[in-house]
Formats: sequence, structure tokens, C-alpha cells
Amino acid sequence: MNYAMIAYILGTILKAEAVLLLLPCGVALGYGEGDLPALAIATLLAGGLGLALTFRKPRNTVIYAREGFVVTSLSWIVMSLVGALPFVLAGQIPSYIDAVFETVSGFTTTGASILTDVEAMTHGLLFWRSFTHWVGGMGVLVFLLAIVPLAGGRNVHIMRAESPGPVVGKLVPRVRDTAIILYGIYIAMTLILVVLLLLGGMPLYDSAVHAFGTAGTGGFGIWGDSIAHYDSAYIDVVLGVGMVLFGVNFNIYYLVLMGKWGSIWKSEELRWYLGIITGSTLLIAWNTLPRWGSFLQSLRYAFFQVGSVITTTGFATADFNLWPELSRMLLMVLMLVGACAGSTGGGMKVSRLIIMMKSAKREISRMLHPRSVYTLKFEGKPLENQTIYNTFSYFFILAGFIIGSTLLISLDNMDFDSTFSAVMACINNIGPGLGVVGPMGSYASLSNLSKVVLILDMLLGRLEIFPMLMLLAPSVWVGKRRKL
Amino acid sequence: MNYAMIAYILGTILKAEAVLLLLPCGVALGYGEGDLPALAIATLLAGGLGLALTFRKPRNTVIYAREGFVVTSLSWIVMSLVGALPFVLAGQIPSYIDAVFETVSGFTTTGASILTDVEAMTHGLLFWRSFTHWVGGMGVLVFLLAIVPLAGGRNVHIMRAESPGPVVGKLVPRVRDTAIILYGIYIAMTLILVVLLLLGGMPLYDSAVHAFGTAGTGGFGIWGDSIAHYDSAYIDVVLGVGMVLFGVNFNIYYLVLMGKWGSIWKSEELRWYLGIITGSTLLIAWNTLPRWGSFLQSLRYAFFQVGSVITTTGFATADFNLWPELSRMLLMVLMLVGACAGSTGGGMKVSRLIIMMKSAKREISRMLHPRSVYTLKFEGKPLENQTIYNTFSYFFILAGFIIGSTLLISLDNMDFDSTFSAVMACINNIGPGLGVVGPMGSYASLSNLSKVVLILDMLLGRLEIFPMLMLLAPSVWVGKRRKL
Repeated sequence: MNYAMIAYILGTILKAEAVLLLLPCGVALGYGEGDLPALAIATLLAGGLGLALTFRKPRNTVIYAREGFVVTSLSWIVMSLVGALPFVLAGQIPSYIDAVFETVSGFTTTGASILTDVEAMTHGLLFWRSFTHWVGGMGVLVFLLAIVPLAGGRNVHIMRAESPGPVVGKLVPRVRDTAIILYGIYIAMTLILVVLLLLGGMPLYDSAVHAFGTAGTGGFGIWGDSIAHYDSAYIDVVLGVGMVLFGVNFNIYYLVLMGKWGSIWKSEELRWYLGIITGSTLLIAWNTLPRWGSFLQSLRYAFFQVGSVITTTGFATADFNLWPELSRMLLMVLMLVGACAGSTGGGMKVSRLIIMMKSAKREISRMLHPRSVYTLKFEGKPLENQTIYNTFSYFFILAGFIIGSTLLISLDNMDFDSTFSAVMACINNIGPGLGVVGPMGSYASLSNLSKVVLILDMLLGRLEIFPMLMLLAPSVWVGKRRKL
Repeated sequence: MNYAMIAYILGTILKAEAVLLLLPCGVALGYGEGDLPALAIATLLAGGLGLALTFRKPRNTVIYAREGFVVTSLSWIVMSLVGALPFVLAGQIPSYIDAVFETVSGFTTTGASILTDVEAMTHGLLFWRSFTHWVGGMGVLVFLLAIVPLAGGRNVHIMRAESPGPVVGKLVPRVRDTAIILYGIYIAMTLILVVLLLLGGMPLYDSAVHAFGTAGTGGFGIWGDSIAHYDSAYIDVVLGVGMVLFGVNFNIYYLVLMGKWGSIWKSEELRWYLGIITGSTLLIAWNTLPRWGSFLQSLRYAFFQVGSVITTTGFATADFNLWPELSRMLLMVLMLVGACAGSTGGGMKVSRLIIMMKSAKREISRMLHPRSVYTLKFEGKPLENQTIYNTFSYFFILAGFIIGSTLLISLDNMDFDSTFSAVMACINNIGPGLGVVGPMGSYASLSNLSKVVLILDMLLGRLEIFPMLMLLAPSVWVGKRRKL
């Protein structure tokens, strides 16, 4: 294990976090609500620690798969531990565990909150809180890859560890160039969203934080009743469509830029994703019709909530916890499905669902005709057995963590809705669940044990399990190094 | 498709059902409570229809995999449709859908009941109700294989379709001999259980029906408060241990008979099964300790319930619906785990769990060392990739059906506990769930749509999904026949 290099990368991450913290410092300065010192201290601390760790570049900069996994997991943990400081230092979230929960929830783009009165927070801290969504959405390390040549071209391990979905598609031969293109698209789309929100009469500050929450598919808002606060059909549509677009594989936008419209329509994942959204929206609109009276209203709220949940954002325009059981269950299923691979969304990802459905279907054919040979294709390419295995294993391990976490959370003796949906909403990076942790509730009342479990779940979900698991595998820390 | 042969086998099944119905007819005659005509008419109907269908043996008796799957599914459906008649004819379950629900629940060894007052039923019908557990436990068709040489040695397709678990182990070269050995063990163990219950002071009638419910891991009782009615530690222990033993792979008992004790201790599934039972019992005993006061009492109720749920029997000595959330959740997890392959129990089966855990673990190693080759072993033999695929596909399809059914049942607008646990308890063939469908509740209040969904779930669970799915695959009904 190349410890020197791991420390060096962690130092670089902290330096980057210090730079990122300057933005909320600026906001705090502008609003003058007394939260500047807390933010400034955290900035200096992150910067100082970062400089100390990167004082000397290690001679051996080569990293392997296991270093890639370990450094990814540790980066997210370290960033969150430091990023939580401003909340505690300003006294606005007195418990450090709560502050870490909130920050991990931010970076992992979950949006689960322990705040009971979000409107009492200062502008600088709320800006930092939403900004973590935006930073975490695309992946902090991918961002670094774009600006810092870290480890001599071997960065694909990091990108693989941090990018959502079963397969990492390199758009262009060099990892760094791919990262730059993706970040370019990300920034451009966020800016367009801000402008559209401004056009809808939303103030600049509100537009920025909600654009961060949408782009990162995070879901932190600044009002107790989330997006329902604005009560504007225009804003609902802009954010609804925005969430859905940020849940699409970013490779699609690259294809758009290249003018390859033909390949876009051929994307199986995109078609399934849009199909699931359409189907679920219609079903929930029908199921909640008596609540709204008109089908158009029903459609408006159903679409927003479906988009919010499948993209794992977690904004709310209505208290879906009060909806009929079918709608509540359907939203719970969408939590698990998640967005497209290669997007900022969480969950299992639509592509994994497709891969598993195809293999299950092949299994049925095989039972009937054992000697036939069936080749599976996905997105026009043959599916390797290795990918299928990996996908099924992922699903199985995810189910295992959901079950294990539910058992631990059940020690809090909440009802089944709250217990199970808290885990689902955190491990799939949605945010609000049902019952106690519903869109108008909060995670404040949970025990510290439950909060720690959910913190780990959020990290597991965002990093797609394996990198976090590697931290626990003894063979990662000891044993012979193997070349890739 | 060899339709003539399918009709012939269905006829044989109906004849067998007529013979089986003679037993409750005898009980009804003895008790003289007026339910004899209903049972007699059903017996004659089954016998007559059976004779008509088997009037002439088809010239071509060859059946293939797809015929095996189709005939298995249809047999269970036809047996249930006919077996439901006595309840309706006697007027004790007026709705035919309810009666079919009760009978499918019996044959599939689920034990879910639509009865709100089981003690109002007559002895003859209650006997038939419990007897269906015993018949369904080992598999009706496997029984037929033992007595009727049906299709010239190709019966392994039927046995594969009807036996629980990922792999069918033929004990001896001939399928028929294997079936005879298994049935011999089954009958002997049932008789021992009856004797032990009699020794505990349970009346003969009660002993017989509870032995049926235990042997088939079904769970139908004759009292409103299930086994709690007897309030006897002796009976709790006898039935508790009995359930656990019937949840063991029957091959183990064959090894016992052969005196091969060494191979028994090597059985990974057995060790895991007993380990899960021990661990869960201790955890629930600790969690429910305040309820019982003494640890021994706590252990008694915890062991019984863990044994009842993991073997998917569904007997109750306490209303576990009222237990703390951790215990309730743990029982829900055990519902999914299920018993051992090759037992009379339902659920996913412990062996499938082990296979998936091993492959998931290999996946993690592979991510670290992509070029290494790992061979998985299970029960001392190398695990074929095909088995792993099949197991994962099974898990995925099961999860899909659980989710789909939950959505349909949620139209009844019950709470999440009841909705989800109703599906879990039926598809895994347990019986009672939580909330409305808890051990002291019933399925009576559900809508007809929900009842039909759960009927299909029980059949899907008992036949391990694939045979039922085959009924829906167009290629089963049309297209070229392929040799196996």
C-alpha cells in the first residue's frame, strides 16, 4: 500500500475543499450574519492540513486499484469530517455527529437533514450546505483529475471508484480530458438552471442553492416546506425537468454536443428511464387524483415527486407521506431504482435493473432449452458475464446492507415505514423517506447509533458500496501488491 | 407440447386427490357434524374427473422440460380448485375465492388463513385443511412418482420443478427410488411427532393436524390463538424442534440412515441454518426479555417463533406482532431466508443465501485482483457458474414479484407493515405476517384482487417461481419442441 501517495491525495483534496469553502465565506461576508468566523476557521484548517500533507510529493506516485478504492473512500470521509466544522463552530448544529450527518448527506447528494428548523440557519451556512451537493454530485476526485495530474495516467481507478453505474465509459482516451468535458457540461447545465429560476422570479440566492441541489440531485432546500414554499407551477416544472435531466447519463450530453442524435435514441437506459418516469407519473397522478381535483394539478405534483425520487434528489412540492399507499410504495420502489449510470443521481441505477432483467429472462429461456446459447446485449454491445456477475453481486450486497441497516435502525423502535424508508432514503441518496423521516419531518429524533449507521449508508450508496467495503477487507491493508 | 400427456397426468393427480380426500371423509363420518356430504361430493367429483382424463393412456408418453414445468404448475392449480370445493359446499367458507385462498395456502404449506373464527369449523373440514399441508409439503407429484411410473424415467423434470432449492440431489440413480426413500422418511418423522404430541397430553385429533402442519411446515392450526392455546412448554419444545427438523434438507436424514455422520457435519447449509436459528433466537430473546421477565421464558418463545418463521411454518405461541421493532424486523428477514433446500420449508432457502454470499465475496476479491482466478466451492463441490447465475436470477425475480405484489396489495390502503408482510408471508409460504395479517389477525378483510395476487404468490413461492413463469412464456406453448 502506497501510504505516502494516499496522504498526498488526501492533502490535495483538503486544499481543494479550502478553495471551495471560500465561496460560502464570500456569501457569509455579504450577508453579515455572524457565521463568517466559523467558515473562515474551517477554511484555514482545511488549507493548512492540506498544505502540510502535500508539502513533499512522494517519489513513488504509482497507485493500484486498491489504493484507488481506499483513497476514494477516505477522501469522502475526510472532506465530510472537515466540512462539518463550520456548522458546529457557528453553534448552529451543536452536535458534531449531527453536523457530520448533515455534511455527509450533502456531499453524497442525499439531502437527509437533522435540522428541525432550516429557516433559522444563516445564509452562509445554508449556502455551504447546498454547495456540498454540487461538489459531491459530479465527484470530488473526478474534479481533481480534471485539474491536477495526480498519478501518471492511472487515474482510471479513481474514476471507476467514484463514478456511478456498472461501467465507466471513457469518452475520450485520456481520463483527464473526459473529466474536463463532463465538468464543462455540468457547469453549463447548472448555469442554465440558475438563469431559468431567475426568470421565474426566484431570488439569486435561492436560485443558486436550488440549482446546486438539483444539479447534484441532492435535495437540500432552504425552506421548511421545500419547493412547495414557492407554490409556482413554473418553478415546479423547471426544477422537475431539471432533476430528470441531471439524472441522465452525462455521456448522452456529450453525444448531443457531438451531434450524434442517432445514438441517443438508441440508448436503452435512457428509454427505460424515461419510460419508468412516465409510467410512474401517470399511475401516481391517477392514484392521487381525488386529492387535487384536476388531472393537470395531479400530474404536476406527481411528475415533480417522481422526478425528485427516481433521480434521488428529494425535493418536495407536497407531503407525499400522506398520499395513498400505492403512491407511497411506488415512490419507495423508485428510490431503489435510482437514476441513470454516469449521472449525478444515486440508487441502484436503471442500467443495473436492465442488465438484471435481461439475464433473468435468459435464465428462464435456459431452463426450457438448456443447450441453446444466448448472448445478451446492452446498449448495442454484448454483455460480458463479468458485468452480469458484478451487477447481481451489487444488488445482493445492497440488499444485505439495506436489511442489516434496517435491523440496526429498528432499535429506535420507530414504525416500519420510518425505519425502512430511512435506510432506503439514505443508502440510495434520496433524503426524505416516509413517516417520521418524511418530507415534512427530519432525522433529528434518531439515536446517535442510527445516525452513524445512516452516515455509513449514505457513503456506501454514493460510492456504490465496493470502495467502502475495501476499507474493511484485510487483504487491502496487508499482503502482496499485485499489478493491474 | 404433449397435451394428451398433460391431461393424463392431471387426471392421475385428481384420482390421487380423491383417494386423499377419503381420509377427511372418514374423520367427518366419525364426528358426524354434517360436513360429510360436502367432502363426499368433492371426492366423487375429483375421482370422476380423474377417471375420465385417464381413461386412455396416450400413445406418446414422452415429456420434456417444458411439459414438466407446465404439468407441475397446472397440477397445483387444479388440485387447489377442486380441494376448495368442500369448504364452499359445506357453506363454511361461502366465497369460492376465499376457499381457493385457504386451499392454495394449505397445499403450498403457507398457512395464511381467511378464517376469522377457525374454532367454528367442523372437524372433518379442519382435518382436510391441515392434511393439505402434509400432502403439499413433500410435493404431490413427487409422491406420484413414487407410486406411478408416469413417463418412462423422464420424471426428473417434474421432480426438479417441484423440489425446493437450487439443486436436486438424486439420492439413488432412479428418481422413483429417491422419491420412495424421501416419502418413507417423511411418513416416519410425522408418526414420531404424533406420538410425542400424544405423550404431551394432546388429543389424537389435535396431534394429527398439528403434526401435518409441522411436517409440511404449513402452520394451519385449529385454535384462534394457534399453539398458545395449549400453553405447554413441552408442546412448544416438541413442535419447535419438530419444525426445525422438517426445515432440514431431507438428504441429511438419508445420510443418517446410511450412518454417514461425517458428511452431515460437513454440510455447510446445515451449519448456516442452525447458526442463523441460534443467533436469531438469542437476539430476539434478549430483545423481548422485558416482556417475559425470565430469560428461559424469553428463550422459549423466541426459539419457537424463530423456528416457526425460518422454516416458514407460521405457528405462533405469542403475538409477535406486538414485539419490539427489532424482533419484528428480524422475523421479517427470516421469512425471506427460509429453510434448507430439499426440505418441506419455503422461502429463498439457506443454500441460495450461501451461494450468493460466496459469489459476492469473490466479486470483491476480483475488483482488487482482476487477473486472479477464484473457484467457489459449496458443500465440497465446485460451484458452477450456471448455478450462481440461476441463484442470482432467482433472487432478483423473487424481489421483483415481492415489489410488484406489494404495489398491487397497496391498493387496499392498509399500512406498510400489513401490505409488505402479507406479500412476504405468502410468497415465502409462512402464513401470518405483521399488522392486520399478524398471527392473531387474518387475511379476511383483504380485497378479492389482493387475495388473487396472494394466491399466485403462494404458488410462485412453493414452486420456486420458474414453473409458474413457464405458464406465461409464449415459447412454451408454441414453437419447436427441443430435445433435452
